[in-house]
Amino acid sequence: MIRAFAKLHEEKVFKDPVHRYIHVRDQLIWDLIGTSEFQRLRRIRQLGTTYVTFHGAEHSRFNHSLGVYEITRRMTENFKGRSYWNEDDRLLALSAALLHDVGHGPFSHSFEKVFQTDHEEWTRAIILGNTEVNSVLRQVDETFPRAVADVIEKTTTNKLVSSMISSQIDADRMDYLLRDAYYTGVSYGQFDMERIMRVMRPTSEQMVVKQSGMHAVEDYIMSRYQMYWQVYFHPVTRSSEVVLSKIFHRVKELKQSGYTFKQPPNHFYPFFNEKRTLRDYLRLDESIVHYYFQIWQEENDRILRDLCVRFLNRRLFKFVEFHPKQRMNDWLELKQLFAEAGLDPAYYLVMDSSSDLPYDVYRPGEEERLPIHLLMPNGELKELSQQSDVVEAISGKKRTDHKLYYPEDMLLESNGEAKTKHRIQEILHKQ
Amino acid sequence: MIRAFAKLHEEKVFKDPVHRYIHVRDQLIWDLIGTSEFQRLRRIRQLGTTYVTFHGAEHSRFNHSLGVYEITRRMTENFKGRSYWNEDDRLLALSAALLHDVGHGPFSHSFEKVFQTDHEEWTRAIILGNTEVNSVLRQVDETFPRAVADVIEKTTTNKLVSSMISSQIDADRMDYLLRDAYYTGVSYGQFDMERIMRVMRPTSEQMVVKQSGMHAVEDYIMSRYQMYWQVYFHPVTRSSEVVLSKIFHRVKELKQSGYTFKQPPNHFYPFFNEKRTLRDYLRLDESIVHYYFQIWQEENDRILRDLCVRFLNRRLFKFVEFHPKQRMNDWLELKQLFAEAGLDPAYYLVMDSSSDLPYDVYRPGEEERLPIHLLMPNGELKELSQQSDVVEAISGKKRTDHKLYYPEDMLLESNGEAKTKHRIQEILHKQ
Amino acid sequence: MIRAFAKLHEEKVFKDPVHRYIHVRDQLIWDLIGTSEFQRLRRIRQLGTTYVTFHGAEHSRFNHSLGVYEITRRMTENFKGRSYWNEDDRLLALSAALLHDVGHGPFSHSFEKVFQTDHEEWTRAIILGNTEVNSVLRQVDETFPRAVADVIEKTTTNKLVSSMISSQIDADRMDYLLRDAYYTGVSYGQFDMERIMRVMRPTSEQMVVKQSGMHAVEDYIMSRYQMYWQVYFHPVTRSSEVVLSKIFHRVKELKQSGYTFKQPPNHFYPFFNEKRTLRDYLRLDESIVHYYFQIWQEENDRILRDLCVRFLNRRLFKFVEFHPKQRMNDWLELKQLFAEAGLDPAYYLVMDSSSDLPYDVYRPGEEERLPIHLLMPNGELKELSQQSDVVEAISGKKRTDHKLYYPEDMLLESNGEAKTKHRIQEILHKQ
Amino acid sequence: MIRAFAKLHEEKVFKDPVHRYIHVRDQLIWDLIGTSEFQRLRRIRQLGTTYVTFHGAEHSRFNHSLGVYEITRRMTENFKGRSYWNEDDRLLALSAALLHDVGHGPFSHSFEKVFQTDHEEWTRAIILGNTEVNSVLRQVDETFPRAVADVIEKTTTNKLVSSMISSQIDADRMDYLLRDAYYTGVSYGQFDMERIMRVMRPTSEQMVVKQSGMHAVEDYIMSRYQMYWQVYFHPVTRSSEVVLSKIFHRVKELKQSGYTFKQPPNHFYPFFNEKRTLRDYLRLDESIVHYYFQIWQEENDRILRDLCVRFLNRRLFKFVEFHPKQRMNDWLELKQLFAEAGLDPAYYLVMDSSSDLPYDVYRPGEEERLPIHLLMPNGELKELSQQSDVVEAISGKKRTDHKLYYPEDMLLESNGEAKTKHRIQEILHKQ
Repeated sequence: MIRAFAKLHEEKVFKDPVHRYIHVRDQLIWDLIGTSEFQRLRRIRQLGTTYVTFHGAEHSRFNHSLGVYEITRRMTENFKGRSYWNEDDRLLALSAALLHDVGHGPFSHSFEKVFQTDHEEWTRAIILGNTEVNSVLRQVDETFPRAVADVIEKTTTNKLVSSMISSQIDADRMDYLLRDAYYTGVSYGQFDMERIMRVMRPTSEQMVVKQSGMHAVEDYIMSRYQMYWQVYFHPVTRSSEVVLSKIFHRVKELKQSGYTFKQPPNHFYPFFNEKRTLRDYLRLDESIVHYYFQIWQEENDRILRDLCVRFLNRRLFKFVEFHPKQRMNDWLELKQLFAEAGLDPAYYLVMDSSSDLPYDVYRPGEEERLPIHLLMPNGELKELSQQSDVVEAISGKKRTDHKLYYPEDMLLESNGEAKTKHRIQEILHKQ
Repeated sequence: MIRAFAKLHEEKVFKDPVHRYIHVRDQLIWDLIGTSEFQRLRRIRQLGTTYVTFHGAEHSRFNHSLGVYEITRRMTENFKGRSYWNEDDRLLALSAALLHDVGHGPFSHSFEKVFQTDHEEWTRAIILGNTEVNSVLRQVDETFPRAVADVIEKTTTNKLVSSMISSQIDADRMDYLLRDAYYTGVSYGQFDMERIMRVMRPTSEQMVVKQSGMHAVEDYIMSRYQMYWQVYFHPVTRSSEVVLSKIFHRVKELKQSGYTFKQPPNHFYPFFNEKRTLRDYLRLDESIVHYYFQIWQEENDRILRDLCVRFLNRRLFKFVEFHPKQRMNDWLELKQLFAEAGLDPAYYLVMDSSSDLPYDVYRPGEEERLPIHLLMPNGELKELSQQSDVVEAISGKKRTDHKLYYPEDMLLESNGEAKTKHRIQEILHKQ
Repeated sequence: MIRAFAKLHEEKVFKDPVHRYIHVRDQLIWDLIGTSEFQRLRRIRQLGTTYVTFHGAEHSRFNHSLGVYEITRRMTENFKGRSYWNEDDRLLALSAALLHDVGHGPFSHSFEKVFQTDHEEWTRAIILGNTEVNSVLRQVDETFPRAVADVIEKTTTNKLVSSMISSQIDADRMDYLLRDAYYTGVSYGQFDMERIMRVMRPTSEQMVVKQSGMHAVEDYIMSRYQMYWQVYFHPVTRSSEVVLSKIFHRVKELKQSGYTFKQPPNHFYPFFNEKRTLRDYLRLDESIVHYYFQIWQEENDRILRDLCVRFLNRRLFKFVEFHPKQRMNDWLELKQLFAEAGLDPAYYLVMDSSSDLPYDVYRPGEEERLPIHLLMPNGELKELSQQSDVVEAISGKKRTDHKLYYPEDMLLESNGEAKTKHRIQEILHKQ
Repeated sequence: MIRAFAKLHEEKVFKDPVHRYIHVRDQLIWDLIGTSEFQRLRRIRQLGTTYVTFHGAEHSRFNHSLGVYEITRRMTENFKGRSYWNEDDRLLALSAALLHDVGHGPFSHSFEKVFQTDHEEWTRAIILGNTEVNSVLRQVDETFPRAVADVIEKTTTNKLVSSMISSQIDADRMDYLLRDAYYTGVSYGQFDMERIMRVMRPTSEQMVVKQSGMHAVEDYIMSRYQMYWQVYFHPVTRSSEVVLSKIFHRVKELKQSGYTFKQPPNHFYPFFNEKRTLRDYLRLDESIVHYYFQIWQEENDRILRDLCVRFLNRRLFKFVEFHPKQRMNDWLELKQLFAEAGLDPAYYLVMDSSSDLPYDVYRPGEEERLPIHLLMPNGELKELSQQSDVVEAISGKKRTDHKLYYPEDMLLESNGEAKTKHRIQEILHKQ
């Protein structure tokens, strides 16, 4: 028990390009960082396939997790001695910050869709299961792992700590905007975090921001908006995501249809039959996935081979704007024409939609997050969009973008009739 | 032929955090970037295991290669219209810049030592062999691949182009200092590249720098010196390098001794028997290596298993200063004591030395590089260290650092006698 | 004639913290920078009294003018060879960029209001009058000064060049946002200028921006919005502006009432009687104004003395939110109460309003500027707010802020009756 | 008394581009910043005439003084709770840091030489005399002003505090390197201050630096070296300094020779007769000096007029390398030839030497500063140059640069005989 609360003899630091230094003063945090489950995050990139578009975006979730921890640590420093802040919650907040993404796997976005898993469940499993992380956390006390999991899952009654890790202006979002901007090299993600930190105040329900910092918060909201459309939803990244998820689909389908792999995808087996254990999951990381993609470049199945070659060598699908609901007939005709041209539309004609809600007063559904509140000079709390014209203007406005992805090179080289190919181009480039 | 010289219809750019943008205007360069051999560099980190010490250093050789290309491109822009510069050499310089590291493999430093390969030979093989790179280069003309290889190998007669890619102040070094500083977050690597570029001038023998830019060059030399000792030779990185190379050693030894692997290391086989082909080499990258390290965590061999667990989970060796020549008796006694304590000294007691020569007038041996010359106002050339006190002071001074690495945890937990363990600590911490 | 068009033998550069280097290649530009009228801008701060709030904001209009020139120069580099761009307009654009603010005087904002002058008229006078600037410009040809003045005044028929210097996204605005952000140290003014420059295209009517750069333009518009409210309209800066303009008022009133100055304000005389010449105006700069403020600290007139002491030593007025139209009775009562308390309300009770229109489709009145147009992939032009939700949301929305300024210290120390003073506080802090 | 020790109700911050924020938490510091003597530093530039060469260098001593205060404040935060640090010395260190330059006047370097004053004496006078600063300091206690003055003058017995403000690695130097680099835009001044701060430790004799931070200190020493030669001793800046000091000389000489000024230089009178009071001195600032320079452009004396026009409009003297001791005959002949050509050599032929000692173990003479000591892992202290090859290499090496300044334009246009003028050029450009 004593070890968990111990301060390190001498502070440890990590040099960090975004926050300059990450400071670790607690034995507990140092031990968590050293667990194999946490070190595994070094082998999972923060932005999935974004590196294909922005070559600088090769940073890992390990990188980001330390950053979220550091921001949370600075929050707790600022909160020290203020009303509503309970110094006993410090290690809870820090542990939850560090571990909030520990359940992520390789290329989570596509992987989860195809194999129906959920990184949030894996996070809980890692914190509560038979793991090194769990055994470190239990040194605080037996109930501590559960408390940490509750914060991450937002089922905790400690709303203040929960809002530090997960709200519309939390340590997670602040770190990823700054960090992803830094590594990609785009300037959009910058905002004055230090200013926001200076004016954050704890309350019983959530962190709030003093009204004098409103403009810094506006700037943060706009940064997030820009990063979504400039980086996270970049159409080239989405193209690589499309190819990636079609690889997973193909493997799953081949397996189900009894195909014999030259080299069996042992690491994936548990995910085909849904009897996956935590141990199976923890063995996965991006090296493993890349390993299979490499050897599958030599598989017999033409589609799997083609998709892996495309993914590894950045021979991605082209895209056009295409709104499926508004162009249902075109959509059906295209599928037919692709089949006629010899391109299986299940793999080679893919709709992808992205949408973002930059800020919302109340956001129903699975990802419900608290609105941001300003602390007025007279002590009142006001919801941000009531005070900010800019935020009000974009509040609740969901923006969606629909694109159709397909391999233009294959289309040009296919054996389909000229008429078919001509008609395809006509539909694709209709305005 | 025509395609190779074609300008792209519209310039392509890559967003780059170091140079802001990488500009591609030639079809040839665009095609080279798209080859599978070049895309493979995305799966090989620029700084090997440095990410273990500086978590930001996760950037790939793809990243750096684009940077070297961009600096060279800017040099050619600056040289345009100046004496000694032949505009016909532009594509030669750009291609050599882009491809100068294309032969690197995963964790080259350790891999090459254990398996006796040489990335420079592989670079030549990729440029001259049956590859996508070669077929793109041959579009210029049949002799072009050879010309590019000659520049990279410094066997060319074109000394000016050679000095742009490979001298004591070349595009390669300028990019890696700035880039590695950016990703690690250390400030040491910064210098005023734009200033240096402004005052670089072509001559028949090499690029030179106008005397007015001498201080910027001094700053560059000092940056390099600092990066070597602060980043590249960081003792923790060297520890992970030590563990890594011991993994390769162990695998090789096991193979030679007829050990049966649970899962055979197919990708490594060609490197055991030295009948490796270019195709074998190109199949290797860091995902493949990581894949094996992961599965070897479950091998029967205790040493291989242990080393892989250490490497993947950052349970590295400790180190002490230790000069082997000055303490030969201690060294021999330690080996004996480790064996007595049950730790095979071939794997668990490792000397590692690093040394750097920050600048030299003449540097004999394999890595001979031209000294830097200043162009004086009267048109004369003077060697840098004759003009700069600072450079003169460090010129030719080789600094070496010797460290002894060993697993302290194992030592503490070993079954060896207390007396043995005590004596080991005594020797290790002798001053 | 020949000299004007001459290229400099060797490019001259100025080290600039915002654009790294300012490049001068034309003799004409070099000569303009060397004129006494342009060098005078070194003695006039870019942001007037903002340095009182943001101590870093001590940079001069000289600084900014070089920056606008440099951005324009880069635009002309990008435009070279494109349709609609006439290379003969290069020197016109560069000269207009460099000289667009040459008519500014010390603390223009307050000075112009009190003495009814207009820096735009002085700019014209400097360009067309008997000045060094004019004589340099005439080396191009006799009509050149008029052409430059026409661009700056937007009376030119050359709409493209005009839009480069003066539109809703011009070299002037881009430079001042980046520069003011840099010197104040706030992060809000940052946007990706390099990206915007890459996608700017000339048309017959104005510069436009390719649609792919829309998000960078949105970011620029938001930066401008933030800089207005965070920096330019900062209430403390406005307080010093209020005190400053009351000094000018007082001097003018004293002069008109026949007051005898201990040291006569010779430099101001021409501005009292409105017979000011260009020569009179050019003798003014911030040193001159500061000189008088200093000696007026020892004048007999109590109000002048007090205001100068306040301005120089940052003993500014306090402020409260106060909307004059909505609180007319309070306003009248306050004036009366201040007089009763012995504080002349003409000097010690000052309303100040700031308002900003972040972007407008069409902006009627004196400062009418063209809306920004996007160049769509199909060649069409679309007005920005039709394409951008964010810009649409803030377009045409004028935001105004009203504050009442007064010297709280004087109020507390005044000999007024307690009742009066109590009532004043009551009104001021009414909510 | 109570007020002086009071913490501010709410921390005040200044936005600072170098340190992000300057934090003020003590009423004493806030009150010192508000004094007229300290506010006066806003009207004195940090780098004198350097803005003529680097247009960004327009920042004031106010700016720098806040920076030195902030670095010292962070040092005291780091020292809190460590051995040798006495928390009672906090306000002493902060006050000395803030006020260390308060006695500087306009263009101190030249002014002091011509009028034989010394800013260090004025600093003492301001702290101990009848000033606002003194009255604020006395609120701590009657002996406090003396204690602060002793720290600044290095006559204190408190060596630790003294070394924080004034040693070879103190808050003063760290701030000016970073700040001057920021405003000029050169990259040389950068070093990792945060790293150095992390490893600074108090001892009874001085601050020392843990050995692990040695490379950061090396980098700091090199930054200082580069800033001296790249910025502080830039030959163009020295040219403006030469012209400036010749203006002061001329005014003094005119006054002594009974010349009648059109407008008498009242502010300078006390400095001619050496009966200057503190009050006289405090009335001087750069606006006053600029005011006179402006009106002197219209004086009858040709030399004074010419020098003022040159200074204000950047028509500076040219320069050549010239070592006076080695070329005594040339020097004497030149003087003669200048006189023959009608140019008074006392004003138009000026030798200027700059020299710098980047680091020294022991530095005798007026500016003696303690060498830097490293704290070794075993607790010993070692002098820096014993440990660092780089520092050892430049330690104690004084570098001097001699230049001869003269107005080339005047020489070309002078009525002197062709022969004389030819001979002058011959000597000047002799190699």
